[in-house]
Amino acid sequence: MEGVPKDAKKVFGGVLFDVYQWDQEMYDGSMAVFERLNRPNTVETVLVTPENKIIIERQRQPDREDWFLSSVGGRIDEGEDPLVAAKREVLEESGYESDDWELLHVWRPTSKILWDDYVYVARGAQKVQEQELDGGEQIELMEVSFDELLDLIDSRELSGFSQIFREMCIRAKYDKPSYEDLKKTILG
Amino acid sequence: MEGVPKDAKKVFGGVLFDVYQWDQEMYDGSMAVFERLNRPNTVETVLVTPENKIIIERQRQPDREDWFLSSVGGRIDEGEDPLVAAKREVLEESGYESDDWELLHVWRPTSKILWDDYVYVARGAQKVQEQELDGGEQIELMEVSFDELLDLIDSRELSGFSQIFREMCIRAKYDKPSYEDLKKTILG
Repeated sequence: MEGVPKDAKKVFGGVLFDVYQWDQEMYDGSMAVFERLNRPNTVETVLVTPENKIIIERQRQPDREDWFLSSVGGRIDEGEDPLVAAKREVLEESGYESDDWELLHVWRPTSKILWDDYVYVARGAQKVQEQELDGGEQIELMEVSFDELLDLIDSRELSGFSQIFREMCIRAKYDKPSYEDLKKTILG
Repeated sequence: MEGVPKDAKKVFGGVLFDVYQWDQEMYDGSMAVFERLNRPNTVETVLVTPENKIIIERQRQPDREDWFLSSVGGRIDEGEDPLVAAKREVLEESGYESDDWELLHVWRPTSKILWDDYVYVARGAQKVQEQELDGGEQIELMEVSFDELLDLIDSRELSGFSQIFREMCIRAKYDKPSYEDLKKTILG
């Protein structure tokens, strides 16, 4: 298990999270039990149509009443390549396909959890089928412009995407050179 | 346990994380086991001296080789008031005290974990004692200006602070009205 010492023991296995513990030597020579979690890595995609619209989701979850805006994405299956997972999640949740994919960055949301979030852009995406949602998903698609995406992130109405991507969007909203850079990255 | 259904069961108790599970009805009527974690809430403080310098930390952790920049803060003890915890962590980690505290916001870093991060500003902070570090802490203090704080967050050299506060800082760096607002909030 990358990210924990070799002698770390798995002390719990859950449906989403596994828990690892080990004895860690402290700076003063004393010992303490340290704990880290493992969970499936995730993918998020900035999904762009040939008309330079960005597809985002309005969704809700079975244990939450409220609808919220999010990126298109989901969990990487065990052993699955991140790009394969991103293409699969995009197809299932939106029905779109693209042949112009680029990895923007990989981000670790919190240091105590072995969890990497892969953020992709997929340009020129075309609708090829209907959504394939499972029983735990309610997802509506929305098309927004590049400027609207920046506004939705700046206002926090859209709560998804990596911290790195969010910071790029806010920089782009208020700084002209950053705007041109990010627009080129996203729209190509 | 706030944030999980009443019938959720604690299925694991760790040194940092507890795991809760429950049977969740899905939109199609099927059932699935849902899982949430609980961990101690945390505090982070924007600690400001009478000379309008902001105190940040250069620290490392027993299971990491690298030094990194962070905010002054830590975990809230069981049953402890968040403001009391913030004052305690500031005194232990920096030796500073302030009598001008303000809660900026409360932030939930990830939806799958019952974990609230309280972000405070403490103005006019004076050094009243030496640091009181435990055996698992190596912390050096740094003084930076308001503008340097914005640069360190914008460049991600400083990885701490809530996503909300980070976004405020980046907005402030590139947008003059946001700069004046945040400077007034932080420096008073």
